[in-house]
Amino acid sequence: MFSIDMNCDLGESFGIYSIGMDEEVLKFVTSANIACGFHAGDPRTMRKTVQLCVQNKVAIGAHPGLQDLQGFGRRNIDITPEEAYELVLYQMGALRAFVKAEGGRLHHVKPHGALYNIAAKNRPLADAIAKAIYDFDNQLVLYGLSGSELVKAGEQIGLHCANEVFVDRTYQDDGTLTPRNEKNALIEDVNEATVQVLSMIQQQKVKTVLGKEIGIHVDTICVHGDGLKALTFVKMIRKKLQDEGIHIKSIK
Amino acid sequence: MFSIDMNCDLGESFGIYSIGMDEEVLKFVTSANIACGFHAGDPRTMRKTVQLCVQNKVAIGAHPGLQDLQGFGRRNIDITPEEAYELVLYQMGALRAFVKAEGGRLHHVKPHGALYNIAAKNRPLADAIAKAIYDFDNQLVLYGLSGSELVKAGEQIGLHCANEVFVDRTYQDDGTLTPRNEKNALIEDVNEATVQVLSMIQQQKVKTVLGKEIGIHVDTICVHGDGLKALTFVKMIRKKLQDEGIHIKSIK
Amino acid sequence: MFSIDMNCDLGESFGIYSIGMDEEVLKFVTSANIACGFHAGDPRTMRKTVQLCVQNKVAIGAHPGLQDLQGFGRRNIDITPEEAYELVLYQMGALRAFVKAEGGRLHHVKPHGALYNIAAKNRPLADAIAKAIYDFDNQLVLYGLSGSELVKAGEQIGLHCANEVFVDRTYQDDGTLTPRNEKNALIEDVNEATVQVLSMIQQQKVKTVLGKEIGIHVDTICVHGDGLKALTFVKMIRKKLQDEGIHIKSIK
Amino acid sequence: MFSIDMNCDLGESFGIYSIGMDEEVLKFVTSANIACGFHAGDPRTMRKTVQLCVQNKVAIGAHPGLQDLQGFGRRNIDITPEEAYELVLYQMGALRAFVKAEGGRLHHVKPHGALYNIAAKNRPLADAIAKAIYDFDNQLVLYGLSGSELVKAGEQIGLHCANEVFVDRTYQDDGTLTPRNEKNALIEDVNEATVQVLSMIQQQKVKTVLGKEIGIHVDTICVHGDGLKALTFVKMIRKKLQDEGIHIKSIK
Repeated sequence: MFSIDMNCDLGESFGIYSIGMDEEVLKFVTSANIACGFHAGDPRTMRKTVQLCVQNKVAIGAHPGLQDLQGFGRRNIDITPEEAYELVLYQMGALRAFVKAEGGRLHHVKPHGALYNIAAKNRPLADAIAKAIYDFDNQLVLYGLSGSELVKAGEQIGLHCANEVFVDRTYQDDGTLTPRNEKNALIEDVNEATVQVLSMIQQQKVKTVLGKEIGIHVDTICVHGDGLKALTFVKMIRKKLQDEGIHIKSIK
Repeated sequence: MFSIDMNCDLGESFGIYSIGMDEEVLKFVTSANIACGFHAGDPRTMRKTVQLCVQNKVAIGAHPGLQDLQGFGRRNIDITPEEAYELVLYQMGALRAFVKAEGGRLHHVKPHGALYNIAAKNRPLADAIAKAIYDFDNQLVLYGLSGSELVKAGEQIGLHCANEVFVDRTYQDDGTLTPRNEKNALIEDVNEATVQVLSMIQQQKVKTVLGKEIGIHVDTICVHGDGLKALTFVKMIRKKLQDEGIHIKSIK
Repeated sequence: MFSIDMNCDLGESFGIYSIGMDEEVLKFVTSANIACGFHAGDPRTMRKTVQLCVQNKVAIGAHPGLQDLQGFGRRNIDITPEEAYELVLYQMGALRAFVKAEGGRLHHVKPHGALYNIAAKNRPLADAIAKAIYDFDNQLVLYGLSGSELVKAGEQIGLHCANEVFVDRTYQDDGTLTPRNEKNALIEDVNEATVQVLSMIQQQKVKTVLGKEIGIHVDTICVHGDGLKALTFVKMIRKKLQDEGIHIKSIK
Repeated sequence: MFSIDMNCDLGESFGIYSIGMDEEVLKFVTSANIACGFHAGDPRTMRKTVQLCVQNKVAIGAHPGLQDLQGFGRRNIDITPEEAYELVLYQMGALRAFVKAEGGRLHHVKPHGALYNIAAKNRPLADAIAKAIYDFDNQLVLYGLSGSELVKAGEQIGLHCANEVFVDRTYQDDGTLTPRNEKNALIEDVNEATVQVLSMIQQQKVKTVLGKEIGIHVDTICVHGDGLKALTFVKMIRKKLQDEGIHIKSIK
């Protein structure tokens, strides 16, 4: 029987600025990636989000990002592997303090935005991130783009890794995501998304935008909770996967 | 036989900005309070400072401050107890990640600057800080101004507390420090400083600026490492205390 | 015939965080106070907001605040008059660059949040702010709490000042606003608000929460655009004032 | 008779962190580029530095950088041309407020660090920066790497541009600077530096690291004031140029 984790980025509010339907989406996902104050989030938001995760028995993950609140961590900054090591370590630690205080357990780490994207391709940076996680707690699960350098780096150092796919994104022949600025990058139809995800889960295969079938591993699928439409999508995907007999549960 | 801890604020560099003679002063103190990135310090500096502490076998403490890099955490910001709880938790966690990665142990927490001063007088804020430390790790030692509300709050919640005095500051009849902007606030003569500290250690007494003798507890004395003069002062005080048979060692 | 200015705080979005119904409320007010990046706002938001003001022929004002994005500039920070001078100067300059580029004219300055509140009572700080404005451009209008130290400081240095009242706040016997945390602080009924504002405009009087009638000057009334309810309130107040023959127009 | 401008980056202190020998170097240069708070500097530092420039009759320039205090604006951030336009506009405006208050005149703009380097090669970004300056004040002089896209963009839009060379850097056959991480990148001998600069000024030529002679324009040479050694270098270069009959004066 197949099982899959559903994860969502949460805790992205900041100060008076509130975004995301965190309380709602937490009822439908099995793991959460919480912003740690560098690209989004703040101590107050982290505390509240951790509390929500504990209440909803959702696996708690750190979601460290580049130090760029202005750009939400989506703009690439040329950091060194050493800087990547340090900023991931800092942010994991900050988040785990809240997890500890709330009686929870830090379960995984998933880099955010530009850091996630660079780490998928840049092996030295991926190695530095994997090492930061390993040095901090070698029982943490590393979430990375399926088949990416980050996942390879994590596996090499001895971390349990989760291959992540995106429920609403299409794939290229080389296994990478179709860039957002290209047409056909997004899958907006929930049935289409379900078909793709099912193929990934049950056959470890995905059909690319050019029609080719390529192999892909999936341990966790990323969904969004930043609006009513996104939330509806999450509920429907979850229902459809369950109808197909897929067990929705967190990793390990 | 009497013993005393000597602590120093360290790791206050930021980015390209370098301050403090951390490597030098670490040879003479027994515990270090490391800035955590809110009022000073950054991930790189935290990592390096923790490494230096581990190498020098100096007890490592978190030195959380208000979120005010511009004002070095010295300007009072009207935060709520809840905000104090959260920013202390965040910063302790961030620092402990580096301590963990370097194979060390986080030993204590001492609030910085304006946060230290408010917590000395404002009991709800002191309680919030004490609770943050307790919720994070109830084995941590809380350093606070000798006899302050912060120390009382720490003791009440069940933390091991260290009463701190300042080697270069004079005292008022009510046991508070003479404000920096008043004359007689600072003790610049090392012999005078030694006499005062010895009286505190051996007799639990201090002579105030008005000549009155009042009771005072001292578990740790704060020294500075921000220049050659400060460093010389530290070496001399240490020597003089040792000559008097005082054992210089960290708490517990 | 009476006339009055209606002003609104705008441009408070930041990065991906969007707040306020700026485009809508700009159709109903005559002057706008634009956040300058310290407590809210950023270069992108400032540019867009200035463009909207130019399009809507609304008088453009700088809305400088304390450097506290986390607390939205609402937490008091103990700054010196010199620091107040410098941060107001910096922010006015930054905003005027966008005004210049868009072919507009900077019309006024209104301190934000905690800075506004401190400047209403603390004369040295008020003097410093007034001097910053005067040194920058002595033709700018200074908006301050009606009858406050800030308005007095502005008048003394030779600035044109606008006494501001709040359309949804009640007043104390000493002419200050009823603190937000007290009951009766807010006026939620638009008719009640209109009666109070009309009394202020036509008779230079306001009835306090204790029922006393005190004198008050009003040149501009502050309204809000941070939600549908606020917007409806603005439209209704404007309509009612116009029905009473009050001319809604910007100052000078 | 030949003349040349000597410029220096100044005002790079921040909060309690002090760097640069600004007061000293200002006696020997003819124009200053002042940090504007994004990569370094703050309102206090900007004010003081502007005062020093006015006192020393040194031409005042804005030195806008990427929003990266942690990395001193030296790390490339993938910003859009629109973002470049906005952050340059913001920073120029902020600095000019201080210049206005001190009775000076803003003379030029020189992008800092990574922004300078990207703008030298990336034409859309260079165009955006040139447009920001032009929209703000078309009488400002744009300082850019000699022969770079930034200078070309400035000339195209109609700005007076100054071709900048570095007194202590060697050149490649294509006219670009030898990257810092390569050997032979730096010229540490003041005589060697003088020979190169004289060749640039008098013959519009420079000998590259491979020995080829290429054409180069120079209107301003960049010197450093970040230490005693740098300062000595500045004094010697100045003396040697003057001995050769070169007139040291600011542009226009």
